[in-house]
Amino acid sequence: MDNVDYKAVRRAALALSLKSDEERVAMLLAVADALDARRQEIEKANALDIDQARRQGMGEALIHRLALPSSKLDGAIAGVRAVAAQKSPVGLVRQRRLLDEGLVLEQVTYPIGVIGMIFEARPDALIQIVSLAIKSANGLILKGGREAQRTNACLVDIIRSCLDGAPFIALISSHEDVDVMLRMEGEVDLIIPRGSASFVRHVMDNTHIPVLGHADGICSVYIHSQANLDEAVAIAVDSKVQYPAACNAAETILVDRAIAPRFIPAFQKALREYGVIIHADGEAMENLEKGKDVVPATEADFDTEYLALALALKVVGNLDEALEHIAAHSSHHTDAIVTEDAEAKARFFREVDSADVFCNCSTRFADGYRFGLGAEVGISTSKIHARGPVGLEGLVTTKWQLSGSGQLVASYSGPGARSFIHRELEP
Amino acid sequence: MDNVDYKAVRRAALALSLKSDEERVAMLLAVADALDARRQEIEKANALDIDQARRQGMGEALIHRLALPSSKLDGAIAGVRAVAAQKSPVGLVRQRRLLDEGLVLEQVTYPIGVIGMIFEARPDALIQIVSLAIKSANGLILKGGREAQRTNACLVDIIRSCLDGAPFIALISSHEDVDVMLRMEGEVDLIIPRGSASFVRHVMDNTHIPVLGHADGICSVYIHSQANLDEAVAIAVDSKVQYPAACNAAETILVDRAIAPRFIPAFQKALREYGVIIHADGEAMENLEKGKDVVPATEADFDTEYLALALALKVVGNLDEALEHIAAHSSHHTDAIVTEDAEAKARFFREVDSADVFCNCSTRFADGYRFGLGAEVGISTSKIHARGPVGLEGLVTTKWQLSGSGQLVASYSGPGARSFIHRELEP
Repeated sequence: MDNVDYKAVRRAALALSLKSDEERVAMLLAVADALDARRQEIEKANALDIDQARRQGMGEALIHRLALPSSKLDGAIAGVRAVAAQKSPVGLVRQRRLLDEGLVLEQVTYPIGVIGMIFEARPDALIQIVSLAIKSANGLILKGGREAQRTNACLVDIIRSCLDGAPFIALISSHEDVDVMLRMEGEVDLIIPRGSASFVRHVMDNTHIPVLGHADGICSVYIHSQANLDEAVAIAVDSKVQYPAACNAAETILVDRAIAPRFIPAFQKALREYGVIIHADGEAMENLEKGKDVVPATEADFDTEYLALALALKVVGNLDEALEHIAAHSSHHTDAIVTEDAEAKARFFREVDSADVFCNCSTRFADGYRFGLGAEVGISTSKIHARGPVGLEGLVTTKWQLSGSGQLVASYSGPGARSFIHRELEP
Repeated sequence: MDNVDYKAVRRAALALSLKSDEERVAMLLAVADALDARRQEIEKANALDIDQARRQGMGEALIHRLALPSSKLDGAIAGVRAVAAQKSPVGLVRQRRLLDEGLVLEQVTYPIGVIGMIFEARPDALIQIVSLAIKSANGLILKGGREAQRTNACLVDIIRSCLDGAPFIALISSHEDVDVMLRMEGEVDLIIPRGSASFVRHVMDNTHIPVLGHADGICSVYIHSQANLDEAVAIAVDSKVQYPAACNAAETILVDRAIAPRFIPAFQKALREYGVIIHADGEAMENLEKGKDVVPATEADFDTEYLALALALKVVGNLDEALEHIAAHSSHHTDAIVTEDAEAKARFFREVDSADVFCNCSTRFADGYRFGLGAEVGISTSKIHARGPVGLEGLVTTKWQLSGSGQLVASYSGPGARSFIHRELEP
């Protein structure tokens, strides 16, 4: 177990928040320079992590996530500089209102405080998360994947060495530490867990601290009767195969009955290039060529996050049936429709209750970088606070600041009471 | 137990969200008219509730909250019309960004879905909550105080009769129903409990549904060395006595050592008019006249929400000590400073980690109506989602809507990859 002084992290986070944005930008640029200057150490530590992972029989997909080659490190360093260049998310006046003469209310953004961040194998995620935390002036309790232990320790060492020890960051390493953190209500303000659905659910079920994130990523693409056929095939394929292990990869393809006889054979042909297994419902089956790539779907298939080259395929009678299926089975992460019909698109956008609703593009666009948020700490399926990819904006809260000149509430009630003015002022 | 069909409430809430704001405004005006037309029924039901409460020995303060006389009903009806007149909180485009040619991202506000609302004796709160729910197009599971049972039933009956049964509202009445609701994850999106600190804590500890609200309301007023003396006395008195049972009433007064010999005697004199008991620390005691209104403070007094004509009084050495005391004892609801010193004010605003931070005015201003939010469903001390008084803005979430023309993520990686444009557009 690591000995984390949570109160010290909070004090250091407060000190970070009292710095100016210029100072925090200088810190970020120092981190970027140091990572660049000490890349040999990073590569060495990463090579040791990869060696051990290989010896322990880790699969190539996970090794790929764990690896931090020069190209990925370049991207991560560029990411730090990009976060530095973004507008400061703290100290923004969101609203300003004159309540009465000499009584002005302001709603101002502030850092959330201390964020508990649990992430998986990818060590480049650590760089992204630390950058966002510095820019938004939050403290961090960080738990990285055990596989990336040496790489993470090396990265944190570099960050500490150029930021006076960076006391607003604490690193924890064991599951026991995570369990301690989950009980730190009042000391940790928000927990963002990334990892398997069962792990995220474990976190959500075992803490009273607010949790931002998502357990399952059961995303669907609905091919509407008025879809452009070629576009529909390409989008459904990209949504599945471009990175099947991602939470925003599609797991279910819904096909309108009217277009099924044309869409399904073309889709099957395209999927065969990638070796995708199709779990098909009865009606979809009628349009598929028999083969090793086709198996009958069970009900459970439509609630399964394959995270692999497999998908569930179902024929629906119309948009209403598609909406019903999505309401019943979606994990409210990302759902897409392919259609040329504006009214079908509008209904899909309004009625699908998911963080991201897309039309005529791949579900894989659901990502903070692609959305132009600069970077993301994760993707939230909660409707509370940040929803969808969470960047800097999701890491701030607000305070109501009221500046008066002796006003009493008693003056606003009873006979001869004053009235409020409630006039909006420029923020 | 009431038989609530949660899925039916969700369907009805979706239908409400598909209406236009004009239609929802018409609904609100119909409710206002119906409440006005049927006020005799309401008064009769309320009289029965009050009779029973009196027979059961309810105190006058609670009876006062329970009572819905014509003047209060007028205010509540005016409140419905005021909510109707506010800008619709749903369907607002918060951000619009060109990701690439023909690929436009929008962040749009939507209702949260179904909100579980538990409130205390005041039946006018029901009218306020229903208005906010209709305007923001959310479904409601409502649990009112048992004391106001007849009044609430009458109000809901009137609302249903002019809104085709208002199927987006369900009324529950027992603690067992509340326990069922707390387990309705996926069916209820947000719970807003109002009531005693222990009840709110019970709700927070027994559900995985997000909870918005506050348990304790331990608010403080810090009299800085550079305070205007008369203003300081008046603000501290108003913060305590204007409505001692409110969550935004002050429980603790911190006095700077430099001003204590002048402030404390004047404060005591003013408090005596209202019969306020002072729990004083040793140093404060030195400046107080002995009497029945003064008792020595224990450590527990500084963590006590009196909700009555009593307060804790402490002398602090300087601003730092005041900030430390607030960090250790405040419930992060509302804290105020009285000072003429701009730097002291600025530090107090930046460093006090509470939903509301005030300078030179009463803590009692912490209220959705006074803040100009139109009305409030409650006050949140959470840093996640809405913080402070929660009006219409706290009842919406957002969706990311991405409209494409066949874009694939594969086109943005590898050799010859497309780049994102990421250009902000007018929302």
